[in-house]
Amino acid sequence: MRPDGRTLRELRPVRFERDFTVFAPGSVLVSMGRTKVLCTASVEERVPAWLRGSGRGWVTAEYSLLPGSSRERVSREAARGRQSGRTQEIQRLIGRSLRAVTDLVAVGEQQVTLDCDVLQADGGTRTAAICGAYLALHDCFTRQVQAGLLVRHPLTDTLAAVSVGIVDGVCMVDLDYAEDSRAEVDMNVVMTGSGRFVEVQGTAEGAPFSRGELDELLTGAAEAIGVLLRQQAEVLAEPPAPRR
Amino acid sequence: MRPDGRTLRELRPVRFERDFTVFAPGSVLVSMGRTKVLCTASVEERVPAWLRGSGRGWVTAEYSLLPGSSRERVSREAARGRQSGRTQEIQRLIGRSLRAVTDLVAVGEQQVTLDCDVLQADGGTRTAAICGAYLALHDCFTRQVQAGLLVRHPLTDTLAAVSVGIVDGVCMVDLDYAEDSRAEVDMNVVMTGSGRFVEVQGTAEGAPFSRGELDELLTGAAEAIGVLLRQQAEVLAEPPAPRR
Amino acid sequence: MRPDGRTLRELRPVRFERDFTVFAPGSVLVSMGRTKVLCTASVEERVPAWLRGSGRGWVTAEYSLLPGSSRERVSREAARGRQSGRTQEIQRLIGRSLRAVTDLVAVGEQQVTLDCDVLQADGGTRTAAICGAYLALHDCFTRQVQAGLLVRHPLTDTLAAVSVGIVDGVCMVDLDYAEDSRAEVDMNVVMTGSGRFVEVQGTAEGAPFSRGELDELLTGAAEAIGVLLRQQAEVLAEPPAPRR
Amino acid sequence: MRPDGRTLRELRPVRFERDFTVFAPGSVLVSMGRTKVLCTASVEERVPAWLRGSGRGWVTAEYSLLPGSSRERVSREAARGRQSGRTQEIQRLIGRSLRAVTDLVAVGEQQVTLDCDVLQADGGTRTAAICGAYLALHDCFTRQVQAGLLVRHPLTDTLAAVSVGIVDGVCMVDLDYAEDSRAEVDMNVVMTGSGRFVEVQGTAEGAPFSRGELDELLTGAAEAIGVLLRQQAEVLAEPPAPRR
Amino acid sequence: MRPDGRTLRELRPVRFERDFTVFAPGSVLVSMGRTKVLCTASVEERVPAWLRGSGRGWVTAEYSLLPGSSRERVSREAARGRQSGRTQEIQRLIGRSLRAVTDLVAVGEQQVTLDCDVLQADGGTRTAAICGAYLALHDCFTRQVQAGLLVRHPLTDTLAAVSVGIVDGVCMVDLDYAEDSRAEVDMNVVMTGSGRFVEVQGTAEGAPFSRGELDELLTGAAEAIGVLLRQQAEVLAEPPAPRR
Amino acid sequence: MRPDGRTLRELRPVRFERDFTVFAPGSVLVSMGRTKVLCTASVEERVPAWLRGSGRGWVTAEYSLLPGSSRERVSREAARGRQSGRTQEIQRLIGRSLRAVTDLVAVGEQQVTLDCDVLQADGGTRTAAICGAYLALHDCFTRQVQAGLLVRHPLTDTLAAVSVGIVDGVCMVDLDYAEDSRAEVDMNVVMTGSGRFVEVQGTAEGAPFSRGELDELLTGAAEAIGVLLRQQAEVLAEPPAPRR
Repeated sequence: MRPDGRTLRELRPVRFERDFTVFAPGSVLVSMGRTKVLCTASVEERVPAWLRGSGRGWVTAEYSLLPGSSRERVSREAARGRQSGRTQEIQRLIGRSLRAVTDLVAVGEQQVTLDCDVLQADGGTRTAAICGAYLALHDCFTRQVQAGLLVRHPLTDTLAAVSVGIVDGVCMVDLDYAEDSRAEVDMNVVMTGSGRFVEVQGTAEGAPFSRGELDELLTGAAEAIGVLLRQQAEVLAEPPAPRR
Repeated sequence: MRPDGRTLRELRPVRFERDFTVFAPGSVLVSMGRTKVLCTASVEERVPAWLRGSGRGWVTAEYSLLPGSSRERVSREAARGRQSGRTQEIQRLIGRSLRAVTDLVAVGEQQVTLDCDVLQADGGTRTAAICGAYLALHDCFTRQVQAGLLVRHPLTDTLAAVSVGIVDGVCMVDLDYAEDSRAEVDMNVVMTGSGRFVEVQGTAEGAPFSRGELDELLTGAAEAIGVLLRQQAEVLAEPPAPRR
Repeated sequence: MRPDGRTLRELRPVRFERDFTVFAPGSVLVSMGRTKVLCTASVEERVPAWLRGSGRGWVTAEYSLLPGSSRERVSREAARGRQSGRTQEIQRLIGRSLRAVTDLVAVGEQQVTLDCDVLQADGGTRTAAICGAYLALHDCFTRQVQAGLLVRHPLTDTLAAVSVGIVDGVCMVDLDYAEDSRAEVDMNVVMTGSGRFVEVQGTAEGAPFSRGELDELLTGAAEAIGVLLRQQAEVLAEPPAPRR
Repeated sequence: MRPDGRTLRELRPVRFERDFTVFAPGSVLVSMGRTKVLCTASVEERVPAWLRGSGRGWVTAEYSLLPGSSRERVSREAARGRQSGRTQEIQRLIGRSLRAVTDLVAVGEQQVTLDCDVLQADGGTRTAAICGAYLALHDCFTRQVQAGLLVRHPLTDTLAAVSVGIVDGVCMVDLDYAEDSRAEVDMNVVMTGSGRFVEVQGTAEGAPFSRGELDELLTGAAEAIGVLLRQQAEVLAEPPAPRR
Repeated sequence: MRPDGRTLRELRPVRFERDFTVFAPGSVLVSMGRTKVLCTASVEERVPAWLRGSGRGWVTAEYSLLPGSSRERVSREAARGRQSGRTQEIQRLIGRSLRAVTDLVAVGEQQVTLDCDVLQADGGTRTAAICGAYLALHDCFTRQVQAGLLVRHPLTDTLAAVSVGIVDGVCMVDLDYAEDSRAEVDMNVVMTGSGRFVEVQGTAEGAPFSRGELDELLTGAAEAIGVLLRQQAEVLAEPPAPRR
Repeated sequence: MRPDGRTLRELRPVRFERDFTVFAPGSVLVSMGRTKVLCTASVEERVPAWLRGSGRGWVTAEYSLLPGSSRERVSREAARGRQSGRTQEIQRLIGRSLRAVTDLVAVGEQQVTLDCDVLQADGGTRTAAICGAYLALHDCFTRQVQAGLLVRHPLTDTLAAVSVGIVDGVCMVDLDYAEDSRAEVDMNVVMTGSGRFVEVQGTAEGAPFSRGELDELLTGAAEAIGVLLRQQAEVLAEPPAPRR
């Protein structure tokens, strides 16, 4: 049994608050247990230099931990003058994952940036960000289709992610901060609605892991992602309110 | 009459959501109309070099606009590699204002950082941040007194702030983004509960302003700050819940 | 009585040395007591991106303290890799103040940069810089009109600035470094020849200040600025020598 | 059949040139096909702040592509002023992988930095770097044991890595640059001599991949890593020549 | 004959204005023709880490061109975020040259920084800076001896520098900006009072130069440096006024 | 006699390994004794802004010490965020030297960058880099002429460099690290095949040097450079193998 009473395969309570803010065309505050990430989708005309004139768009992501989001204050990267290696690794993961289910031609020559800012960090922030960012991106595109700016919705599949790990030799799903800091193995898994893998990142923080343990982790992840996909679908069942 | 129906001397609806996040010892989500700023107070052992061994503490502030907080995406300062001049000016204002009502000896050799991150920007973000940061700082010190870490509460007075301005020749209080972008004069005023000024910053964006207009702006500001002080007092009437 | 024998409302001796250097189209070494600031106006074809094609010009300012300008050496910002918050705040103030009396259409699509470098710092450097920079800008435009590059002189009014403050409870004008470092309240005031305010920045370093004290400070400032405006007028009575 | 005639499960020719340079206590030039990475192990007294006085050492890595290492010149990160996200991701991977087989207590309070500089890049640079860095680290520790600086050899297991991927739907091992740039799926796998996983990083550049494809990739990787481990063992059969 | 009427071996008019500013313990405004450089010597307790506890002091230099010093505005390095290669090369040359005639043990564990800021640039700024910085350093040490802070004067010899070059095939001394920009060869020479070389830096901007031309340049430089040394001696004949 | 048995005028063993790497159009690993520098020539379409449309090309250089190249680890400039003053000084020297023997019109509107990365540093790295970079540049241009991209070979002369110095009062040629760290005078000399000087940089690290010593150093350098030019000529006797 886990400190907060969950079973090994059980997700923390998940909430997607749509349009938590109203200026960005897509905005979702995602909570997984005590982890809270504000994900906004913003659209800009200009695309990266190498795409200009190609007719293709781009989807990218940026991530940060707000200094007051954790038990110990995290120094502000803007004041320090650069993003940490961890931040760059996470925002590249979020960007890659979203692009894997996006038809960039359908996006047209514009850039959508998903800004994922962690308001409260209790473990699993990058995978929560992917789930929230997907919804924000979906709303953003839906609104562009509603406004006649896009012909068809560029998202080709649904997408969700979860972190899994081995703590005291036991495989478990959706680790909170306490569990994550004691995990021997920590794995982030991103999958599409069609049940295929977009990203598998497993790291042995302590003892290396066996092929059997790897398989058990992947199975747990697939199951949890299924639950998340259904919850996303419930949110998306209703189109977002149009932006005045 | 103003676009949103307010009178010239009327504040936008104000809300202080205490403990919006739970890891920082002080956390307040302040909303003034559609402006939303998350203010957290975090405590660190180390003090700036010039205070080491002095027995005195320090209170400082950092500020940012989340990229998705405005209609146009604001580039992320951490990715650009440095804070803008505007950001530094605002966080120095917030820090100075809070220190003006703080007995640094009573704080003891520790540093409290108020992180003010704008989730949604619709004008008056710096003055809203000051109001929210004061409450977050107050809760942080109250909890330290409750936990026996501080002998007495270091705040020596209450503190609030509001932005005022002249739009089409008319003085008005608590400008939203639309009004602020058309203002000929824009002024930020910070005052204590005892009715004295901590900061007065007035700038002629268009035509310079007369002494009479300056007086009218100060009067409007003082009145609005009175309202804000009363709302803060209602929040502080109950001590914050102790942190587990 | 003040340490250097001045009355409370008396300015330090002011000197404007025109064309202290000869390559920049406007160059004034301004001294206020022992504070010396070299202000140069340089013209560049390119304007900021958002003004290209608008037919409007731009006036901006940059500021620095030379490392050897103060009693303690000030580390060189270029070696440290960035400008301090204070530097950015001051150069934004100088830029705003000058633009308040400049018809940017009359400037035409060019950028004039006022570089204000403090050779010797004894308090009131930012307000001395504004007085010197105004004259350098005036000479620069006069020379452009003389050379037929501009149709009419873009400056719409005269402009001067002074720092005032409260030391040991007493309001006084044009504080030197010793007085400034003991001031409870420090205020910078920028006004036009027409007697209107361009900028009012008052900060309580120690105890907050009353509305009465604010009024007294503003009156003292207005009077001193009148004196400065007359001294500027004497300099400008003669057009600058044309540049070979 | 692959362009260079290899079978799907066949590694490119591997060469480990020990002591390619002579000043660093460990130095190996590793070639995998036309990829060449110079890996050096350097020892420094100081350890990261959080380890001081803990009696534990630290092993970390830094990585770069020499500007002339690829067909198109890669801009020099030192001249640009910062390391790219990709560089930071790779050097964190190398550091984590080496620490997974290192007894940090046995290292003692010193820091060993593995510098992996790619002289020639033809795909699989990060996994080649891990193989070369392991040997350089091994030699460095062996020399410290020979010189009586260390009581026992801190490496607890052998370690090797390989990149695998799916190109035109076909799983293959040790992709060169041409294959890697066309791969739909790209995976880096790091394993110990005991056949357990230290790191599994799989990314769908094009279409997402199935669980079956994931299994086939892992099997291919394990086999290739076995070959690499045997080649490393041959090198390590002889102790490195002592440093004069 | 040269544009300004000088002979080939003739220096421009040289002026050393002692104590141009009064807060730094050494301050000299040096003019060579229209080149003006403000050189100040500032003393700081702390020495570089590698000298701590060695009982030896350090002398170093920093250099900059004020943005308004040249015909075209020079962008401000502090705003750009780093010093140019040229700036670093020049300040290292000034530092090395001064240390060559300084007994660092006699300096004691303190650091003297010579800040050389070019107010007006018309060629030969680095060699003018060396001449001015030597005098500022000399005054700074003299004042420390007067104040009993130093036992003996640390300067072991006099020091001066001049730039020479070949323009249209003709060797000449002390090039101004117009001559320097057309020079095929540009050489900076630093020598001591004892007639020995501290630094010789010759660069072929156009056609390479012969051994004979090199000799002629060195002879011209030695002669001009003799003149400069005599002018410095005249200034140093009187001790600097003590600092209040 | 010198520690490694050489006479005062004798070079260390020199080796030029052509095409050490195969992707850059010019690549030479130069060894002088235990100093090893990898020099690559890379071609890029874009030229610096001020040359666009001029029909002229540009040749520039960048330099670095690999962290593991010296006895003590050198911190990686990319991780530190900027190049040191020494690095910038050296790469500007290499660039200037190569441009002195290059007809930039014949290069056409392209930029060739010589990247000189020191794999092993035992003194004289900058002059070894110049010798190696010249060969790499020569091969690069030869291949462009072979491929019909250039009409004629842009190099107008041969070029070599050597470091000389005075150790314990004795002039010697091609100092290794041990000799260089004890040298009172250190001089780098760059000459063309026609026996003329491109660069002469002499610095008194200890006691200043006399005109006689300067002459002796230049004579020793000219002789050694003659030997180096002959060895370069042997390499260039055969054209480089064409690039597949």
